[in-house]
Amino acid sequence: MARCRLCRNQGQRTPAEIYLPAHRLPLCREHFLSWFERYLDRTIRSFKMFTRGQRILVAVSGGKDSLSLWQALTSLGYEADGVFIYLGIEENSFSLLSRRAAEAMAERLGRPLHIIDMPRELGFSVPDLRRKTRKTCSLCGTVKRQYLNQIAKRLGYEVIVTGHNLDDEASSLLGNLLNWNLKYLARKYPVLPAERGFVRKAKPLCRHSVREIRLYAEIRKLPYLAESCPLSEEATRPFYAQLLDELEEKAPGTKLRFYLDYLRKAYPLFAGHREEFMDRELITCERCGEPAVSSPCLLCRLKEEYGARA
Amino acid sequence: MARCRLCRNQGQRTPAEIYLPAHRLPLCREHFLSWFERYLDRTIRSFKMFTRGQRILVAVSGGKDSLSLWQALTSLGYEADGVFIYLGIEENSFSLLSRRAAEAMAERLGRPLHIIDMPRELGFSVPDLRRKTRKTCSLCGTVKRQYLNQIAKRLGYEVIVTGHNLDDEASSLLGNLLNWNLKYLARKYPVLPAERGFVRKAKPLCRHSVREIRLYAEIRKLPYLAESCPLSEEATRPFYAQLLDELEEKAPGTKLRFYLDYLRKAYPLFAGHREEFMDRELITCERCGEPAVSSPCLLCRLKEEYGARA
Repeated sequence: MARCRLCRNQGQRTPAEIYLPAHRLPLCREHFLSWFERYLDRTIRSFKMFTRGQRILVAVSGGKDSLSLWQALTSLGYEADGVFIYLGIEENSFSLLSRRAAEAMAERLGRPLHIIDMPRELGFSVPDLRRKTRKTCSLCGTVKRQYLNQIAKRLGYEVIVTGHNLDDEASSLLGNLLNWNLKYLARKYPVLPAERGFVRKAKPLCRHSVREIRLYAEIRKLPYLAESCPLSEEATRPFYAQLLDELEEKAPGTKLRFYLDYLRKAYPLFAGHREEFMDRELITCERCGEPAVSSPCLLCRLKEEYGARA
Repeated sequence: MARCRLCRNQGQRTPAEIYLPAHRLPLCREHFLSWFERYLDRTIRSFKMFTRGQRILVAVSGGKDSLSLWQALTSLGYEADGVFIYLGIEENSFSLLSRRAAEAMAERLGRPLHIIDMPRELGFSVPDLRRKTRKTCSLCGTVKRQYLNQIAKRLGYEVIVTGHNLDDEASSLLGNLLNWNLKYLARKYPVLPAERGFVRKAKPLCRHSVREIRLYAEIRKLPYLAESCPLSEEATRPFYAQLLDELEEKAPGTKLRFYLDYLRKAYPLFAGHREEFMDRELITCERCGEPAVSSPCLLCRLKEEYGARA
């Protein structure tokens, strides 16, 4: 059995229970945890995402990614509070269990968790959106992004961080390439600065694979909800993820190299032409004052539509 | 059974034996042939590859792609002669059968076929290259490209055309994206102008799928060799091709859109930064006067090495 690389560096011969093929790294469980956190810290510093003095808001869904991120940031000494948006999905099941996972995590860390009740605050739930459109996922994503930005400003946070992992980023990159969505490619970067009414955003787990995150969450015994959203309808994203998994299986490290080489070599090219790819200019919503592509913005229009419930 | 679209346009109700999912087009066999050739002609014209007055040299391997291309170009009235490079692969089998296929095609079309004997002219065969390196395919490709350029100039042709099809182009595009080979992406276009000692090059079949070409070759009863090169060692290209096949299966037309959108939206971006991606500048080989990245060039170095056989 292989020995833990980090124990070996300390002159010990502990067997490695974990092997990370992409990094060719055999580790014992304890060193895996410290590797995971140090690797996260290196990502944060190398992309200049944020610093220890800043007020950070973690978008907590209750799943393994956001809970691992919150745990690791806290262990590393970052000032990270959580926000949970209650979406009203299967009221007594999925959204409720998600909220409980987020609350258990907040208690464990001893950090504040802001709970935002979307149906109460906005007048509509995600199931309401679903009744409106077939593209529930993309609409839910857009609504959450816009709403999260408002919440972060209202609560005075400097940075919003989300639990997007390497598999998410690499598969959406592949999807955007296969469809040549230059508009998205030009903004596909793990940190986006505060500008034009947007709060700074970062994806600190962008270099961590799903497997690494799951291992971390399990070894740390995080109270995450393993269930995925019952309304999820994404058919092609998992397909791209599967293609990349097959490539990764053949040549470990492919996914990471594909994503990081994109950031280093190709992103600057796309970003340099960003303005040309925008199909609609950014304006300010006359009602809420938020940056948007239309006025009233999507959120204000939805609020109006579901006004009866508000 | 669906009716042939083109027969219907002429007021007839012929059953369609062939369905092209990427074009949502049901066709009878006869109209498939005319569709194939007209679509080729549209590709040639829309990319301004060449015109009917020009002297065109088709790189003929003896396979379905190059024979279909030669046949269709001739049917369309282009002045296309062939060149076959005898590579000395399995002397009494693969290379011999390939040459016979090329010769049979030349006779059928009544067009000249230049036969170049690589072992005799250069002093080495592809199996000789194989003994030198593990990357036979890439070395063979480089040697053939350089050699073909010399031959075209020597014989006075204005354009070299090759049988690369949509599947070739889309899968190598995907491979170049997954590995972020910007140098190749910046030159990945179906027509490259004559410049700096290079003859103009074109890939007129870049919008035709393997299946369409195979159908054309079969219906036209072209004397092609179905066998693929016994030295082929490419392991990842067929893998990328398979990934694209799966996507195509799910959403017909994906491959074509992926490739054409690349040409339209992303290629100009990569090409605009071409000079930055070049790892080595182009110089002139002091021995043969050809454009190359080293002097003596690869071909001259190989000739020297295998001089004893020359």
